Amino acid sequence: MVIIMNTDATEQNIRDVIDAIVSVGLEAKVMEGAHQKIVGVIGDKGRMASVPVEAMEGVEKSVAISKSYKLASREFHPQSSIVRVGDVEIGGEVPVVMAGPCAVESREQLFEAADIVKDGGAQFLRGGAYKPRTSPYSFQGLEEKGLEYLAEARERTGLKVVTEVTVVEAIERVCQYADMLQIGARNMQNFGLLKEVGKCGKPVLLKRGLAATIDEWLNAAEYIMHSGNPNVVLCERGIRTYETYTRNTLDMSAVAAIKHLSHLPVIVDPSHGTGKWRMVKPMAFASIAAGADGLMMEVHPNPSKALSDGPQSLTPEHYKGIMEGIGKLASFMKSEPSLRLFDEE
Amino acid sequence: MVIIMNTDATEQNIRDVIDAIVSVGLEAKVMEGAHQKIVGVIGDKGRMASVPVEAMEGVEKSVAISKSYKLASREFHPQSSIVRVGDVEIGGEVPVVMAGPCAVESREQLFEAADIVKDGGAQFLRGGAYKPRTSPYSFQGLEEKGLEYLAEARERTGLKVVTEVTVVEAIERVCQYADMLQIGARNMQNFGLLKEVGKCGKPVLLKRGLAATIDEWLNAAEYIMHSGNPNVVLCERGIRTYETYTRNTLDMSAVAAIKHLSHLPVIVDPSHGTGKWRMVKPMAFASIAAGADGLMMEVHPNPSKALSDGPQSLTPEHYKGIMEGIGKLASFMKSEPSLRLFDEE
Amino acid sequence: MVIIMNTDATEQNIRDVIDAIVSVGLEAKVMEGAHQKIVGVIGDKGRMASVPVEAMEGVEKSVAISKSYKLASREFHPQSSIVRVGDVEIGGEVPVVMAGPCAVESREQLFEAADIVKDGGAQFLRGGAYKPRTSPYSFQGLEEKGLEYLAEARERTGLKVVTEVTVVEAIERVCQYADMLQIGARNMQNFGLLKEVGKCGKPVLLKRGLAATIDEWLNAAEYIMHSGNPNVVLCERGIRTYETYTRNTLDMSAVAAIKHLSHLPVIVDPSHGTGKWRMVKPMAFASIAAGADGLMMEVHPNPSKALSDGPQSLTPEHYKGIMEGIGKLASFMKSEPSLRLFDEE
Amino acid sequence: MVIIMNTDATEQNIRDVIDAIVSVGLEAKVMEGAHQKIVGVIGDKGRMASVPVEAMEGVEKSVAISKSYKLASREFHPQSSIVRVGDVEIGGEVPVVMAGPCAVESREQLFEAADIVKDGGAQFLRGGAYKPRTSPYSFQGLEEKGLEYLAEARERTGLKVVTEVTVVEAIERVCQYADMLQIGARNMQNFGLLKEVGKCGKPVLLKRGLAATIDEWLNAAEYIMHSGNPNVVLCERGIRTYETYTRNTLDMSAVAAIKHLSHLPVIVDPSHGTGKWRMVKPMAFASIAAGADGLMMEVHPNPSKALSDGPQSLTPEHYKGIMEGIGKLASFMKSEPSLRLFDEE
Repeated sequence: MVIIMNTDATEQNIRDVIDAIVSVGLEAKVMEGAHQKIVGVIGDKGRMASVPVEAMEGVEKSVAISKSYKLASREFHPQSSIVRVGDVEIGGEVPVVMAGPCAVESREQLFEAADIVKDGGAQFLRGGAYKPRTSPYSFQGLEEKGLEYLAEARERTGLKVVTEVTVVEAIERVCQYADMLQIGARNMQNFGLLKEVGKCGKPVLLKRGLAATIDEWLNAAEYIMHSGNPNVVLCERGIRTYETYTRNTLDMSAVAAIKHLSHLPVIVDPSHGTGKWRMVKPMAFASIAAGADGLMMEVHPNPSKALSDGPQSLTPEHYKGIMEGIGKLASFMKSEPSLRLFDEE
Repeated sequence: MVIIMNTDATEQNIRDVIDAIVSVGLEAKVMEGAHQKIVGVIGDKGRMASVPVEAMEGVEKSVAISKSYKLASREFHPQSSIVRVGDVEIGGEVPVVMAGPCAVESREQLFEAADIVKDGGAQFLRGGAYKPRTSPYSFQGLEEKGLEYLAEARERTGLKVVTEVTVVEAIERVCQYADMLQIGARNMQNFGLLKEVGKCGKPVLLKRGLAATIDEWLNAAEYIMHSGNPNVVLCERGIRTYETYTRNTLDMSAVAAIKHLSHLPVIVDPSHGTGKWRMVKPMAFASIAAGADGLMMEVHPNPSKALSDGPQSLTPEHYKGIMEGIGKLASFMKSEPSLRLFDEE
Repeated sequence: MVIIMNTDATEQNIRDVIDAIVSVGLEAKVMEGAHQKIVGVIGDKGRMASVPVEAMEGVEKSVAISKSYKLASREFHPQSSIVRVGDVEIGGEVPVVMAGPCAVESREQLFEAADIVKDGGAQFLRGGAYKPRTSPYSFQGLEEKGLEYLAEARERTGLKVVTEVTVVEAIERVCQYADMLQIGARNMQNFGLLKEVGKCGKPVLLKRGLAATIDEWLNAAEYIMHSGNPNVVLCERGIRTYETYTRNTLDMSAVAAIKHLSHLPVIVDPSHGTGKWRMVKPMAFASIAAGADGLMMEVHPNPSKALSDGPQSLTPEHYKGIMEGIGKLASFMKSEPSLRLFDEE
Repeated sequence: MVIIMNTDATEQNIRDVIDAIVSVGLEAKVMEGAHQKIVGVIGDKGRMASVPVEAMEGVEKSVAISKSYKLASREFHPQSSIVRVGDVEIGGEVPVVMAGPCAVESREQLFEAADIVKDGGAQFLRGGAYKPRTSPYSFQGLEEKGLEYLAEARERTGLKVVTEVTVVEAIERVCQYADMLQIGARNMQNFGLLKEVGKCGKPVLLKRGLAATIDEWLNAAEYIMHSGNPNVVLCERGIRTYETYTRNTLDMSAVAAIKHLSHLPVIVDPSHGTGKWRMVKPMAFASIAAGADGLMMEVHPNPSKALSDGPQSLTPEHYKGIMEGIGKLASFMKSEPSLRLFDEE
């Protein structure tokens, strides 16, 4: 940490800052500039958490230098991690696709969707049994019934099941039915949920919060990992900006940022990221080209009858077309040395 | 709801949209423009939730017209509500102040803070026993011990206690010790928590989410009210923007927006809203002048030793000065007819 | 400037960074942490502008410490500045109000507006002769005719005239007619315009850019001051955020930030800041309570016939009511010691 | 346009709205809902610009339906446009690359850069002679000298030259030296400049504003086209969000949005879009996969000595590697039917 003093900070102010640093067992080093003094802190910065240095007199601001997450950081784990869900590898050679309806609406709808998803070549079936909705009057999901249908659809197709868990009480139940737990954007900083999900054995798909920084997102992953679960996959799903044409602004560069900062796999959800089915195809291709480890996409047997997120759901035909393209693009990327990414990392 | 068709929508597309509307018992009316057709939906728009009209062919976009919240809306409840916490009225004649440390750190710190808070004239003692923190390595709060200290401080001072609840499992326990439950910004769309908090009898302070729209915030209030709890107070605490000088951007206009859209009381938290203690005074005065029903402020016996949020905590002296100003300003606002707000509502 | 090296930076990397610093005549000081090294730069940081240190190998990031603006900074000019426009003082004891229609639409409309503005007690008449509009098909202003009407209205009422200049070619002409030049939000970083406006003798009202940081805003003021014109008044007019209920998000805390960082006067425009006339009154009062040196407000003889910005224009009645309130509030603020702001600065 | 009335609007309010619509020669149609009435406007909506309907009593809000830009819209020009700069086609079969240093720093630097750019296979040399900089104390560009060097570099290499024009007075001079004029992000709504650039014969590269919506961006293009210049190429360069890890947030979905809404070519600038050279490669590949018509990238003979934007400049080696990848990826995209985009448009 570097502490920048005010231009009018007194000698006593600086001594107080140094004393506070030393009092937690760290070393302080002062640098004198033309107008301002700077105090550098040397040693394990974790201890500085208990020194509210910005509240001390004469302090202009402090700048954190080391990152607050460790288990999620590439610095301490240089090789990229592979998260295994049964026999499927996320973060390996082949991009993984998770597809399905936004919400499980009925047994029939889910089975039909699952067949389409399987047919197109995805490895995961997605579908919400518990739906976090802005309004209490919107469809809230089939809950346990929805989980049962998901498990049945898995039997039927061999697809892995990923589904969202929104409350601690439901974790155990969801674990019985799902292969992978999803933490939704609205719960990315529901720390109680993160801690408990970290204690169950299942791999976790952690969506980026609506307005979360990359740093906060990796800290959320750290919560899960710190509770004992190293199997975290990150999912970029668009962030909130002033732009209203798209539902969210898909932050494609987050893929490259995560690959640089962390060893965890990262996938992209262009359906929520854009909110428009027309944009899913170009953004899916872009994600693969940017080095994403996979995709999450909404597909519905009949989007115009979907109870949730119809406008961003693909028809079966569009979905199949995109899956073919993804396969071709991914193989080409792998075969062509000039398209290799992150070699310099 | 108004549905705007593409310029190249076919007659069949329009018929399909009309059929979908009629199928849920609503009436459709078509308006023909020079280049585009518009379909208006008449009747209870709640039913449209199950018609994913934007996914239908030929549809450009749909525009919601009626609001999705009802219990929180001033349209259906024109008089301003007063929320009573014991003998304290929030939304009444006198602005209410909730003050105290960000986190309960020790019995001594809390008692000292409570005495200062009481002395300055606030009605509520605030203090976090459960702290949602970005990093798992930061101080997470004293938990139940913290609640006990809060209850003791109440005994000692007669102040009401407001404190945050972050997980469903803790609601019952927090209810035993607190007079008012706080839902923090990160949990504003933790719908499971909102529903359960709606079932307990205690009044709720609902902070605005980090990047929540006013509409989403009122829908979050609707969740609590819909579960049976009408005693909701809203708290503006700054929103996330590109500006980095302040910790958040305090949206002062949200006070006026809430007063127009809703009958619920609204208070302002300038400590989190700005992240800088120097800004608390001018923003506290501005909040009162804008018509806020109260304030939440962080005060710490010794901010430079605070375990959390030191840079935005007031010293006892600053706090007392601000309290005096608030009292003077609020009386003057009330006595002076030209400063009356919201008369036209 | 503080330069933070990567955890895997080599000794050679650090030597290269030091050499680059020394080569522009500055001194470098190395601080060794547990995992990372930090290089501090001592001396006039202006010279570092020519050292692209973040592009050097082994560098993680650099952090600027001193501010890039000087003439606008309170650090080098501790007393608050007063900008004089004729006999009107901005930044003095009394808040200054600039009111009038968004655009000059006709001689009649402007005269009627000017009489209302005068009557209510404002010191300045505002009104756009050159209107920057999103679409080329919107009303673009009366241009020189508009300027003439403004000058006539000044004759008639004795009000000062402030009006926007959007292109370098028009500066001379606008100077002939106006008492103060306005730089609009969309031109805040039109550096060519800033430089030229800095050369004319007239005081300048500099609106904050749509998405400008406070730092960029003060740097824009620096451009004008650096060209020889110290008479700059800042105007907060709302920033662009994800919130759609208001036209912009009025950043009330910018008033306090500017008062801390700069000696220049700052006023607030709640009409553009909110986009809704209903919100002008509470936000005007809040601005005064927050310590603003004045207000800019849109008032129109008949807002429902305005060619531009009708929804945010006040009727004559509302305007007069607000003016009365502002006067009362400002006197009270001044008379009451506990409401004094910025004493601690 | 659709006008939504308040729930408590009177019959007279509705009649007034209808009268206002009819008074500009348009037709109004009323739709009665359960709680609210809606008024639809039929006919050329351009005329509604002069009816400030939101300021009328009883009006809740109005919703624009038709777009305000026409010449830039795909609705009125379904085929994609190709912009020709000499013998280079932008928007054609092959993606176009514009590369070079951020700023022209010296004859030697530019020539060296130009040789590298040419060698790698780009069609355009970019380089700023006039640099808009946040601080007046930063390097402002070599101005006319810079233009001369650019023209010399063109002679030497045969590359086309694209360079920024920041003030009206410089347009003529820049036109003498450049093949294509660039409007920078900070000038996207400098309407005076747009109009004048629309009158010169040169093709224009229009960068998206720092916080411009897609709608505003296309309206800016409309200004240029409306002044007589149809040869506009759009350039996505990242937007301003709360995320601080990247310099801007590259809005990759804007490529797909523009392709849907407009017939104009669109390219991507991953250098400014991310601010980090490490991210240029993945974002360049993603842009091509998303269907961009080209790229703008910063390359510098020696980024660690660049006077501007060093951290985001590529070394010659990185640049060549990326160019090879782009070529391979673009050919593959074209050859593979499943990777074709925008067929459904």
